[in-house]
Amino acid sequence: MSIPPSISHILKAGPIHFGPFLVTTQVFHLTPHTYALVNLKPILPGHVLISPRRVVPRVTDLTPTETSDLFLTVRRVARMIERVYGASSLNIAIQDGVDAGQSVPHVHAHVIPRRRGDLDARGGVDAVYELLDGEEGDLRGGLGAGGDGNGGRGRRFPKVDDEGRVARGMEEMEGEAWMLAREMEREVEVGE
Amino acid sequence: MSIPPSISHILKAGPIHFGPFLVTTQVFHLTPHTYALVNLKPILPGHVLISPRRVVPRVTDLTPTETSDLFLTVRRVARMIERVYGASSLNIAIQDGVDAGQSVPHVHAHVIPRRRGDLDARGGVDAVYELLDGEEGDLRGGLGAGGDGNGGRGRRFPKVDDEGRVARGMEEMEGEAWMLAREMEREVEVGE
Repeated sequence: MSIPPSISHILKAGPIHFGPFLVTTQVFHLTPHTYALVNLKPILPGHVLISPRRVVPRVTDLTPTETSDLFLTVRRVARMIERVYGASSLNIAIQDGVDAGQSVPHVHAHVIPRRRGDLDARGGVDAVYELLDGEEGDLRGGLGAGGDGNGGRGRRFPKVDDEGRVARGMEEMEGEAWMLAREMEREVEVGE
Repeated sequence: MSIPPSISHILKAGPIHFGPFLVTTQVFHLTPHTYALVNLKPILPGHVLISPRRVVPRVTDLTPTETSDLFLTVRRVARMIERVYGASSLNIAIQDGVDAGQSVPHVHAHVIPRRRGDLDARGGVDAVYELLDGEEGDLRGGLGAGGDGNGGRGRRFPKVDDEGRVARGMEEMEGEAWMLAREMEREVEVGE
């Protein structure tokens, strides 16, 4: 399988950081101010993150240009994710600051594709938020350079069943990043 | 107390709808494509909603211009709310579609100011999301024209303690809208 053009572009443009972590090979879409990356432990298949390229902790730290670019990217990625994962709805959530549950001090919007009844066995429609609580700690313990190496300092355990939230290998994440990069290339061609 | 200039502008520009509900007098900020309104039953003091003026259910229904305007407004309102309510963090969340928990079919971003330990007595930092689940049903039963008059058809009860989530009178909400309108006038003067 040949490398998608947008992945070549991303690898040339890197390194890309998520807080202290090097995530270049998990990135599947890059704009002038924003990137989108796959997750180490998605809450549901297709759960991805959208971040500004500049490492800043709070939404209010973004310039107007970065803000527009971030959310135009959220909208476009969200539409692609909903199509590719056969979803009917999406949760879009930002934990903006530590007292709102943020654990990696770098702005990131969660985009989580939803289907009717998808979390019935794990606590219901809003269990997604309790599951979110464990997600970033997992990233902190799991992702490459910059990790603290102790398996997730400050990690909080999800309050509901975390069945299915298995840490994935780099190969699987990179495969998903390539697949989503191709889908984003299609999405951008289709336009608004 | 004289009417804030931005409130005069909003009342002239109305009527403003949130889904089927007339909410003109709860609106405290208006831009070409976006408005911000106070809540009938805020989860925490300062919990407000930001919506596009055009009544559309999904984020993907927004034009790029509407998307930029919505989130630039979220950012500016969020900064004001954090300052006015003495918060240290914010939750920003969109339930984009019914299978993600949306109950009023009109795009809206929740902005909820947070402080350390503010929900400790009501279930912890992430209880905010469970509380969100009841919020829209409350709006549906309680707000003016377009309400179904049966106290909240389809209303789901919060799963955690809802102490403090008392339905407010119109006078209180309009007073808050005037106060926040003045604060937004200050915010816009300060610039980015």
